[in-house]
Amino acid sequence: METKNIPDIVVGRMPIYLRALQLMLEEGRRVTSSQELGERLGISAAQIRKDLSQFGEFGKQGTGYSIDYLSEQIRQILNIDRVWDVAVVGAGDIGSAVARYQGFSNRGFKVAMIFDSDPTKIGSQIGTFTIQDSQKLVKSIRQAGIQVAMVATPGPEAQAVADQLVSAGVKSILNYAPINLTVPDGVRVQYIDPVIHLQRMTYYL
Amino acid sequence: METKNIPDIVVGRMPIYLRALQLMLEEGRRVTSSQELGERLGISAAQIRKDLSQFGEFGKQGTGYSIDYLSEQIRQILNIDRVWDVAVVGAGDIGSAVARYQGFSNRGFKVAMIFDSDPTKIGSQIGTFTIQDSQKLVKSIRQAGIQVAMVATPGPEAQAVADQLVSAGVKSILNYAPINLTVPDGVRVQYIDPVIHLQRMTYYL
Repeated sequence: METKNIPDIVVGRMPIYLRALQLMLEEGRRVTSSQELGERLGISAAQIRKDLSQFGEFGKQGTGYSIDYLSEQIRQILNIDRVWDVAVVGAGDIGSAVARYQGFSNRGFKVAMIFDSDPTKIGSQIGTFTIQDSQKLVKSIRQAGIQVAMVATPGPEAQAVADQLVSAGVKSILNYAPINLTVPDGVRVQYIDPVIHLQRMTYYL
Repeated sequence: METKNIPDIVVGRMPIYLRALQLMLEEGRRVTSSQELGERLGISAAQIRKDLSQFGEFGKQGTGYSIDYLSEQIRQILNIDRVWDVAVVGAGDIGSAVARYQGFSNRGFKVAMIFDSDPTKIGSQIGTFTIQDSQKLVKSIRQAGIQVAMVATPGPEAQAVADQLVSAGVKSILNYAPINLTVPDGVRVQYIDPVIHLQRMTYYL
């Protein structure tokens, strides 16, 4: 499968298509079209066809897409036809909520460990996890071969944590701390900051 | 100030610039350049200058930007030179974490009320908030004139909640539920789904 030079913005839409397809499957649906998918997502049918065509041929003219087949293909494209262990750093409100979040299952991820630097938190439980000492972060993550992590520390600590994650072999960081992280080439960061999203909408009010 | 027809992607970068500028202010800095801002954010200096020029002239050739002045201008552009009350719907892990989140202060938002439909939660406290009955959502939000809301319900409930929010006068919805919402013209939705961000990164692993 040719997957080189595909714009990141196109890659970024594939998980959104997959989520919609999985909901359709849960509704008992078997076949869909770029038109229907587009209406559900507020994206044009032409855009969806164009995006998918960058990865291969997944539907037949006139018969639409097999939802099951297309989902499986997108899962392969996104490398989530397996389960990735995820390390969470920061056991505050957000880190704890993420560690308990049930929405990872069946979508390619499983929280495997959670760390904090606060001595009063280390050793206590969040769901099935025991909060580990952040000082053991590099060793534990490296030993487990974990490549995906979420940073949910306060802003001032996040860059140092990211540096440790990178040195432990992490290649994908989802950052909840409200700062931009600097990472070397080959490491990707995505950001979740609710205020950024809210501010983007108040522009239009 | 001319703000018509500015692409949403440009609008979307303004909060990111503002966040970086606010961090610089906290570091005691007074003046910055598009080069420095670009290095911190991994965005080209040319892009930053182009984005800002869509809204006005904020710096002088050779002397850079006054951080304080530029921050204030961006705050005005994004309509966050005021504080927006926010309603949170769903008092689970994510909704509770968001309601307690300290990061809204000084960034234009304040959680004002939180709702849940679970009788065992209604009336109990999250921080300083008493969880209110979702059945009173439309009336309470309309009375308070709230235009900004966060949806943190399970996926299957989110569309019905969004419909209620819209009927109550909400114009901006930040949706944590893992589904796409359908809303009328004039209402904006932004999405936070950590799995979507993670899947976008595993493509590259």
